[in-house]
Amino acid sequence: MATTEHPTPLAATPINRTVYVGAFAHSKTLKELEICPRGAIGVDEDGKIAFVARDIGSGKEGVQACLREYGWTGAGVVEIADGGEEGGSGFFFPGFIDTHIHAPQHPNTGLFGHHTLLTWLHTYTFPREASLQHLPTAHRIYTRLVHRTLSHGTTTAAYYATIHVPATLALASICLAHGQRAFVGRVCMDRQTVNPDTYRDEGCAEALAKSAECVAGVRERDAGRGLVWPILTPRFAPSCSVDALAGLGAMMKADRGLWAQTHISENEAEVRLVAELFPDATSYADVYDRAGLLNGRMVLAHAVHLTTEEKELVRRRDAKVAHCPASNTALTSGCCPVRELLERGITVGLGTDVSGGYSPSVLEMCRQAILVSRHRAMVGGEGEKLAVEEALYLATRGGAKVLGLESRVGGFEVGMEWDAQMVRLGGVDELGEGELEGPVDVFGWESWEDRIAKWLYSGDDRNTVAVWVNGRLVHKTDWYLQ
Amino acid sequence: MATTEHPTPLAATPINRTVYVGAFAHSKTLKELEICPRGAIGVDEDGKIAFVARDIGSGKEGVQACLREYGWTGAGVVEIADGGEEGGSGFFFPGFIDTHIHAPQHPNTGLFGHHTLLTWLHTYTFPREASLQHLPTAHRIYTRLVHRTLSHGTTTAAYYATIHVPATLALASICLAHGQRAFVGRVCMDRQTVNPDTYRDEGCAEALAKSAECVAGVRERDAGRGLVWPILTPRFAPSCSVDALAGLGAMMKADRGLWAQTHISENEAEVRLVAELFPDATSYADVYDRAGLLNGRMVLAHAVHLTTEEKELVRRRDAKVAHCPASNTALTSGCCPVRELLERGITVGLGTDVSGGYSPSVLEMCRQAILVSRHRAMVGGEGEKLAVEEALYLATRGGAKVLGLESRVGGFEVGMEWDAQMVRLGGVDELGEGELEGPVDVFGWESWEDRIAKWLYSGDDRNTVAVWVNGRLVHKTDWYLQ
Repeated sequence: MATTEHPTPLAATPINRTVYVGAFAHSKTLKELEICPRGAIGVDEDGKIAFVARDIGSGKEGVQACLREYGWTGAGVVEIADGGEEGGSGFFFPGFIDTHIHAPQHPNTGLFGHHTLLTWLHTYTFPREASLQHLPTAHRIYTRLVHRTLSHGTTTAAYYATIHVPATLALASICLAHGQRAFVGRVCMDRQTVNPDTYRDEGCAEALAKSAECVAGVRERDAGRGLVWPILTPRFAPSCSVDALAGLGAMMKADRGLWAQTHISENEAEVRLVAELFPDATSYADVYDRAGLLNGRMVLAHAVHLTTEEKELVRRRDAKVAHCPASNTALTSGCCPVRELLERGITVGLGTDVSGGYSPSVLEMCRQAILVSRHRAMVGGEGEKLAVEEALYLATRGGAKVLGLESRVGGFEVGMEWDAQMVRLGGVDELGEGELEGPVDVFGWESWEDRIAKWLYSGDDRNTVAVWVNGRLVHKTDWYLQ
Repeated sequence: MATTEHPTPLAATPINRTVYVGAFAHSKTLKELEICPRGAIGVDEDGKIAFVARDIGSGKEGVQACLREYGWTGAGVVEIADGGEEGGSGFFFPGFIDTHIHAPQHPNTGLFGHHTLLTWLHTYTFPREASLQHLPTAHRIYTRLVHRTLSHGTTTAAYYATIHVPATLALASICLAHGQRAFVGRVCMDRQTVNPDTYRDEGCAEALAKSAECVAGVRERDAGRGLVWPILTPRFAPSCSVDALAGLGAMMKADRGLWAQTHISENEAEVRLVAELFPDATSYADVYDRAGLLNGRMVLAHAVHLTTEEKELVRRRDAKVAHCPASNTALTSGCCPVRELLERGITVGLGTDVSGGYSPSVLEMCRQAILVSRHRAMVGGEGEKLAVEEALYLATRGGAKVLGLESRVGGFEVGMEWDAQMVRLGGVDELGEGELEGPVDVFGWESWEDRIAKWLYSGDDRNTVAVWVNGRLVHKTDWYLQ
């Protein structure tokens, strides 16, 4: 069996200097998407962007002139194939950042029945997660999911694993082996009365010791590469004792390089449960604040039902929000007030929340974030609507800020790492009879803005033909460079 | 150029007696999905189901025993390939019925900007539709779209075309050429003050004459095959004069084989506009009722904002509703009260509403109908929720009833036509490392109900590996019979 604990990681392979040639697009700000129809981005041996040229000449001569200008003759060139007369086209886009995903739940994707959060957890989620005590099962699920998320252009993911230390460390190894940037968190859940007896920590001491073991183990596997990090993961307040939350908060305080993730105010019944279980706290957010967990390194998933006071507390503490629109709708949790959070100055990214969310695609989350914002607009007015460029910002720059990576990934700037995807859109020939190349049809008369809108609304993993993390090619399809 | 007006239609080719072997699923009622893990369905030379065997033996012997039992030895056999140990699996499912789709708008898929209905029509829709006066453009768009919809398992579609007679008749010919069952409607829009000068009928007389011309022309092309039908298509009340609506109503009364389709109460501004334009009518529904258009052969798209009185009028007249969830959300129109319509006894099907909807996939509409029902449930309670089996009913049996085809298609019953799709779901090997075969991952432990839920929530056209209409194979992918 090839499930070794330390496979040779792709992340350790050398990188050749390469220039990426063709159209590119990336967010400048929440409201502004820069689109460059013919650019060239030079990526050095460290996988970092050395230059961004925005107006290179046409043809091979233009590329060679660019290489000469930067003194990069001899570097590799990856150029997007010409879409030709049929209108097909391609562009480079920053890799997506999934700020909230439960890796062990991938096999449960699409299984909801009529449940809402709390009964769904006990019916589908906890039994599935418990099965990852069997390490080969964990390897099978995690390997498949990392393949899947890479194929959707996810270059960075913040993973929840399970309570099991070996399986959690295996997930870190699998991310390194496949070259995906990731935060990997062992789930902490020690409260007897909420968690099932068959799947929980045996008390606070065990919860904290195993959390610490995973922090050390993930760092050991990353070996200073800066690709995979540990993340403290109290499941959600109802799953944890006050002591466990405080213990994790103390770990976070003592170790300024350590991040944390949890859930908050996803569902109204959950909010009531928190009030019952934590009678001393003044709010759900206050439970985390008292534990020392509400700070600039905390990722809060959902944040659907926060009170105004809680939103202000989250903002003051600079805690981040992972917006999970597909999950919030599928589980009938509610509609996160993304516009309000953004206007208050809270940092927001997107999360697939597999398998509360039914898709491992961040592109699908862009679409769902826009649709959920329209449901808010039906009640609250036009201002609630998220635009195409705003959703794409949340999926890239926003997610990077959520995970403290905004100086490293999320856009194409000199000094940032080459975490990117090549997107291709199929053309339609003059008779309309050619093969269907992916789900998007480009007729040739579309502006670049139109093409990106088409990709957002009807694209999928077929359009993501190649993916790079830190300058290394981590996924490609047959359509790449054809 | 291969855009002849009368290509040799696939619909005219002979059909061999064939037995379809493997799992199948179809709706019995709104609430009940029948799943048969190993069945055999015999389809005769007329493309009709001659027998449905629900428990045939395993292996080739089981198939041969079945053929002998029905006296069909020598018939062709199409068997779903064994998913093997990796858990992959397949099943036959009735073809989908799209009860509302604007064929000329396919190139605009995903283009919304910040618009709602009325400004979106003038910015994107009318200019695009006007361009189909150029017949090669119409051929290109319609050919591509019929390819697309077939690839998504749409075996029957109710198409809106444009105001142009030649392009509308071309659409009918293209459906026949590719073997898709369809209603094809020339759009009627003669009101000067709402429609642009560059794209409207020159008065009521022209509107009615061209509508009649298309009715005759579509019937001539179908030549009695019963595959493609004309359908009267007043765009929506604001686009039409009172006289044009009455004229179409009179055509419908005089010709009991003629259907009609239009829009109703999609958007609140539209409802107000109708009240201004038709001061004599007591409601939007009453506008159509006065014109003689509200009857059992009328398909009403959207029906989001109907009053209680209007719903009762629609029910009494037995008019049908095409629910278009993706469009209603994308255009911020509102959430159709599907549960209430069903409980009142109104017939409901699903419509993609390309390009108000951003996808030509009815499977995506099942997903979106479920999600929209959850948005209704967030306000109105659990009863609003549509289940997986209910959404699939609307997409098949429901759509068939909307279009008066319930005795011919929508389920697997003796005497019905073989309008079907073969669905395959990819398996995951023991190491999780194999190729990604389509978007759905089956691990092997899922029940049949789970597999169908996974298909609904995360499947796409890659899973629809073959499609038949009236017993003829009209689409297949490389994965078919592999």
